[in-house]
Amino acid sequence: MSLIIIGTVAFDAIETPFGKTDKIVGGAATYASLAASYFYTKAKIVAVVGDDFPKADIDIFTEHGIDTEGLQIKAGEKSFFWSGKYHNDMNSRDTLITELNVLETFDPVIPESYQDCEFLMLGNLTPQVQQTVIKRLKKRPKLIVMDTMNFWMDIMMDDLLETIKMVDVLTINDAEARQLSGEYSLVKAAKKILAMGPKYLIIKKGEHGALLFHEDQIFSAPALPLAEVFDPTGAGDTFAGGFIGYLAKVGTINFNNMKNAIIYGSALASFCVEKFGTEKLLNLTEAEVSGRIQEFVNLSSFTIEA
Amino acid sequence: MSLIIIGTVAFDAIETPFGKTDKIVGGAATYASLAASYFYTKAKIVAVVGDDFPKADIDIFTEHGIDTEGLQIKAGEKSFFWSGKYHNDMNSRDTLITELNVLETFDPVIPESYQDCEFLMLGNLTPQVQQTVIKRLKKRPKLIVMDTMNFWMDIMMDDLLETIKMVDVLTINDAEARQLSGEYSLVKAAKKILAMGPKYLIIKKGEHGALLFHEDQIFSAPALPLAEVFDPTGAGDTFAGGFIGYLAKVGTINFNNMKNAIIYGSALASFCVEKFGTEKLLNLTEAEVSGRIQEFVNLSSFTIEA
Repeated sequence: MSLIIIGTVAFDAIETPFGKTDKIVGGAATYASLAASYFYTKAKIVAVVGDDFPKADIDIFTEHGIDTEGLQIKAGEKSFFWSGKYHNDMNSRDTLITELNVLETFDPVIPESYQDCEFLMLGNLTPQVQQTVIKRLKKRPKLIVMDTMNFWMDIMMDDLLETIKMVDVLTINDAEARQLSGEYSLVKAAKKILAMGPKYLIIKKGEHGALLFHEDQIFSAPALPLAEVFDPTGAGDTFAGGFIGYLAKVGTINFNNMKNAIIYGSALASFCVEKFGTEKLLNLTEAEVSGRIQEFVNLSSFTIEA
Repeated sequence: MSLIIIGTVAFDAIETPFGKTDKIVGGAATYASLAASYFYTKAKIVAVVGDDFPKADIDIFTEHGIDTEGLQIKAGEKSFFWSGKYHNDMNSRDTLITELNVLETFDPVIPESYQDCEFLMLGNLTPQVQQTVIKRLKKRPKLIVMDTMNFWMDIMMDDLLETIKMVDVLTINDAEARQLSGEYSLVKAAKKILAMGPKYLIIKKGEHGALLFHEDQIFSAPALPLAEVFDPTGAGDTFAGGFIGYLAKVGTINFNNMKNAIIYGSALASFCVEKFGTEKLLNLTEAEVSGRIQEFVNLSSFTIEA
C-alpha cells in the first residue's frame, strides 16, 4: 500500500512585503509530500528536475521518508522555475518569471515499486500529464485526489474535464469553482461540478477556510485567523498533501474522515505560510501539529443543547 | 428585565437580480426586533417614523410581542426611505435614493417602562444618537451591543470612537474592521479594536461567516452555504437581533453563550435573505428555526480523537 504524489519539484524566487528569497526549493509535489509525511510514512513522488537540482535538496525528501524513485533527473536540463511577487494584501500576486524547462516534455514514469498505489494525489500540472499517471497505474487507486487551477480552464478545458471525470476528489478555489461551473453560488457550482465526475469537491477559500461537498452533505472548515501571513506560496499544495496524507493513514474513505482530513490539511497549511517556502514544513514536531489541530477544534466548536 | 433595540424603522425599495419591490417596510430596528422576537418575548423598540407609516405595519410589531411605546410617530413628516439596487454577485449594491426625513432630527425618547433595560442593541444610526440612548438610561444595561458602518467612519470618526468606548460588543464587517483599525490582518485589527473599549468584537464576513474575538479567544462561525440569496437587505440587522435576543433569553454573558448567540443570529439571517425584505421573518415556526440551527451544527462539527 502506498501514496503517490505527482506534481512539480522546482525552484521558486518569492517576494512578499516581508522580504524576498533567491531561488529556493518549491513545487506542488515538494509541499504536498512534505505535508503528507507528517501523517503517512510511505509517500512516493513522481516528478522531474534538471541536473541543476541539488542532491542535498533531494536528500530532504529521503529524510522525511519520501520515496524519490519516481523523480527523474534530466541531464543537461534545468528545473522548472517560477518567480512571483505578492501584493500587500497577500491575496494576489504577479508572476514575474515562468521557465518551464524540464516540465515542457515531462513524461511521468511510474516505477514498478509504485504499483501498489492506493492513494494518488495529482498535484497541479497539465491535465494530460495527470491523466497519464492514472493510466499508467495497473490498478486504479482507491482514492484519486486532483488539484488544478484556472490556467488549465482558460487554455484546455476539454482535457481538464476529461481528467476531472476520472478522479474522486477535486480541490479548487472559489473563483475556480465559479469559472468551472459558470455558477456564482458555490452551492450551485458544487452541484454542477459533482455531476462532472468527482464524488467529493473541496472548495478552498484561503483565509475563509474551505467547503467540502459530497452528495447532499456540506462541511464548512474554518481557517485559522493569523496575525501574519509571511508567504502564501505552497499553502494549497500543503493543504492537499496533509489532506491525502491523513486519509492514507486512516485508510477508510468516508465523509467524517474527509472532514478531519481537511482540518489536518488546513493545520499544515497554516504552518506553511508562517515562513518563506518550505522552511516551516521541514521540522515540525508532533506536539506542534497536535497543538495546531487543537486550535482548530477550539476555534470552531460550540455546543447547542436542542 | 428587558431588551431595547434602537434603530431605523423605515421604507425600502429594493431591486435584486430576482425582482424588485415597491416601498416595503425595512430598517435596522425592524429586522433586529423581529429576529429577537423568536427567542425573547420582551423586546422594545426605540425609533421614529412619519405619519405615512401604516398602522397595519406597526401592528406587526405588536403581533410579535414587540413593545412600540418608544416608537415616535411624527405628524406631518415622512419616514426614512432608502432605495438600492444589488449587483449580480449580491455582495455589492448601489444606493439609488436616501431620504432621511424624520431621521434628520431624531431625538430618541426612552419611555419610563423601558428603564428596566438589561440588554441594549444599538442598531446602525449616527453615533451621537446611539450615545444619547445609553446616557438616557438611568442604569447601565448589563450588555450593550453596537452595530455601525463605514459611513460613520468616513464622516465622524471621533464621535464613533467615543460611542464604541461605551459598549460591550461591536459588530462590523471585515472591510469596516480594516478601516477602523488600519490593519489588514483581522487578528491585528481585532486586537486594536478591543483596545478601543469593547470586550467582544464580531467581524461579519457575509457568505464566509463571522469571527468572534474576546481577549485571546477566537470563535469562527460558518455561514450556511445557500443556493440562492434572494435579497441581502437586513441580513446584518437580523443577525444582530437574533444574537442579542438569544443572549437576553439565556441571560448569562460568557464566551460560550456568545458563540451560540452568533449561531442563532446567523440562522435567522440565513432565513432573512431567502425572500424580499422582512417577509421570511414574519412567520417562522419553532421547528424551522431549530431545524436551521441543526444545519449549522451539521455543517461545522467534526470529531478528532487526539
